Amino acid sequence: MTETVRELASAARRAGRRLAHFPGPERRSVLLALADALGRSEERERLRAANEADLAAAQPRVAAGELTQALVDRLVLSTSKLDALCDGLVQLAGQKDLVGETTLRRELDDGLVLSRVSCPLGVLGVVFEARPDAVPQITGLALRTGNAVVLKGGREAQQSNEALVSLIKSTLKMQGIDPAVVSLLHGREQVDEMLQLDDLIDLVIARGSSEFVRYVQSKSSIEVLGHAEGLCHLFLHASADASMAARIAVDAKCSYPAACNAIETLLWEPGAEAALASTVAALAEAGVTLKGCEATRGLHPALGAASAEDWATEYGDKTLSIGRVEDLRRALEHIDRYGSRHTEAIVAQDDGAASAFVANVDAAGVFHNASTRFADGYRYGLGAEVGISTGKLHARGPVGVEGLVTYRWILLGRGQVASDYGPGKRKFTHRDG
Amino acid sequence: MTETVRELASAARRAGRRLAHFPGPERRSVLLALADALGRSEERERLRAANEADLAAAQPRVAAGELTQALVDRLVLSTSKLDALCDGLVQLAGQKDLVGETTLRRELDDGLVLSRVSCPLGVLGVVFEARPDAVPQITGLALRTGNAVVLKGGREAQQSNEALVSLIKSTLKMQGIDPAVVSLLHGREQVDEMLQLDDLIDLVIARGSSEFVRYVQSKSSIEVLGHAEGLCHLFLHASADASMAARIAVDAKCSYPAACNAIETLLWEPGAEAALASTVAALAEAGVTLKGCEATRGLHPALGAASAEDWATEYGDKTLSIGRVEDLRRALEHIDRYGSRHTEAIVAQDDGAASAFVANVDAAGVFHNASTRFADGYRYGLGAEVGISTGKLHARGPVGVEGLVTYRWILLGRGQVASDYGPGKRKFTHRDG
Repeated sequence: MTETVRELASAARRAGRRLAHFPGPERRSVLLALADALGRSEERERLRAANEADLAAAQPRVAAGELTQALVDRLVLSTSKLDALCDGLVQLAGQKDLVGETTLRRELDDGLVLSRVSCPLGVLGVVFEARPDAVPQITGLALRTGNAVVLKGGREAQQSNEALVSLIKSTLKMQGIDPAVVSLLHGREQVDEMLQLDDLIDLVIARGSSEFVRYVQSKSSIEVLGHAEGLCHLFLHASADASMAARIAVDAKCSYPAACNAIETLLWEPGAEAALASTVAALAEAGVTLKGCEATRGLHPALGAASAEDWATEYGDKTLSIGRVEDLRRALEHIDRYGSRHTEAIVAQDDGAASAFVANVDAAGVFHNASTRFADGYRYGLGAEVGISTGKLHARGPVGVEGLVTYRWILLGRGQVASDYGPGKRKFTHRDG
Repeated sequence: MTETVRELASAARRAGRRLAHFPGPERRSVLLALADALGRSEERERLRAANEADLAAAQPRVAAGELTQALVDRLVLSTSKLDALCDGLVQLAGQKDLVGETTLRRELDDGLVLSRVSCPLGVLGVVFEARPDAVPQITGLALRTGNAVVLKGGREAQQSNEALVSLIKSTLKMQGIDPAVVSLLHGREQVDEMLQLDDLIDLVIARGSSEFVRYVQSKSSIEVLGHAEGLCHLFLHASADASMAARIAVDAKCSYPAACNAIETLLWEPGAEAALASTVAALAEAGVTLKGCEATRGLHPALGAASAEDWATEYGDKTLSIGRVEDLRRALEHIDRYGSRHTEAIVAQDDGAASAFVANVDAAGVFHNASTRFADGYRYGLGAEVGISTGKLHARGPVGVEGLVTYRWILLGRGQVASDYGPGKRKFTHRDG
């Protein structure tokens, strides 16, 4: 009964094609059934047991230095994470159905009508590290958009992932949907095999550390959606409110230091010394290791020294580099050079400065007086996200349902041929609507 | 005065950033000025002279078998091509401005407002073979969307391309736009250098033969938009009208055999023998070399024999393979296996069959009773196209202005932090509008 990855992906493709033809309301009700199941206490018990087994297996590996505590934090399927998952699925069910939507209708000539109709991508291959909550999130997004999905999680979360996929498959079966639309791979070899199936997999989504995403990108001939880096900045303008700056900095660094939308560098300009002081104090109190440039250490001698390398480092833990820039223009240059085009934020009371920052930063997210941690599909109201894209194509920032559909151009005619049109011949009418 | 490719691309990036901040009407008027210039007889004379020099240089190479006649055909800057270019630029100028458009506005909470705002991609690197008309088409699309562009055409079209770029640069200068937004590279080495500039080039667009596009894809770490193959089918359903089938097949094969939207294979099912007969007769009269499967040759013994390899071949010339399939389902399977997901067409009077075909073909274009040659940005009313994408991400089919923009998420707050939100804490309002 061991199926090859090719067999699993082929079955997913066939099941996905049938799913794509399901009416939207049916795909919608699957999500509600899934949220229901995830909320039931007996299912939660089963998930908790599986998750605890994973956590127990991880502990000695943390002690041995093989796994980081940050990774284990991501592994936990807490009640609040499960609640948020249920919320997300319900949110997603409530969203507009994007499959089969006619996004453009244009008469090219009498009796020659072009339409652009949205459709699923097909089969998604999703590879992620520790974070079992990715399983229902990604499956939910895939089902909502008529896609099949082949999942591969980290081996640290294997029992949690298996419990989640089995819950999903039984829910699908009860809803009359072929459970082959969702499958779970095991082992690195199966991932490598999947990454080669460019005739069956339409998009690979990679979630995890920068190195991990780069590994997936290097291995696959299929297009990969994923952020290789999350190097975000917070810039304190001279007009920054000191207590707001401290509050935002602590949230952006400490609420989940391993997250890609956490900040790695704080920039400040002359005039922002008071905001800097309160921010440094609040971060130190929150247990953040601070490294400063020379000018910053001139004001705060207790800080460690930041080297040139620090500006290019995504710490992923409670470490933050602090650098002084001459002015807003230099802050923009620093961000352009070191930022990963993920999310960049300014704290400023001066609206002109904020507008200049917002207009000139080339990143998926540009924030004014708000924490970078808001850069997230759930917080944006997308229901969930398959990941955050720092690329510029197709989807940028948190990727929800819109990133999982594409379109086809449908042309219905009465025997028209192209050589009848052109200068001196028939003219196109190009009438929309 | 010889600039390196890095210098050219850096200058393009800076000039592009300024262009992106130009108001839409100014970017629009540049296109009209360009159409004007391309329509002026003295400019046409200059272009014709350059083009004739290219054509004269190509002739001995055709005789020597180094260049194909199909390539030389693409090289010609005919009056009708120039007229179509002017038309396209005017069409493009009339299109909606996509830069700076707010495509979503959502209140996340009181005083915390998210918007999604469209913006240019940045710098496009465009590599194309013979076809100098690509220069104004692509430049027009780039300018309309606030992008800079680094172009590299085939050396067969070098004089034509230089004449076109010089016309564009002088038009830009007169319109007060930094001419560095457009530049032209020379030589394979410069292309290879450009394909490495992943910090300066946001998207590579490759136009040309399958081998050429694959070469570009293999050389670049930047995302490449391009169709590696154009293997399109025409399927004659049993209900096909015989004279319509013949007319569409001749247009789809002969009006431009080297084009990617020309057909390579004709499929027919039992019951379509009359349509097949009239189609075979019309194609033979048009000088097409026909190759058939055994069943086809049983009816038309004069045809050559098609081998298994033929179904996977993009001839690019006046050759066509003809295969019998058992029924519509088998036609879909054949197309799924051999098609390049470019454009697929059915000829049928039976609407049920047409609907089934349209619903089930996974390709950028699916046509009923119309020639595959309509798959083109100009014919679709997109003004022009940078290319036709057979990938499923970002843009599919003919790519016009919409494929050249992306978006940023802008979040404006009053000091909100993410850890204040969640189960048991503040709730997001997620109110759109």
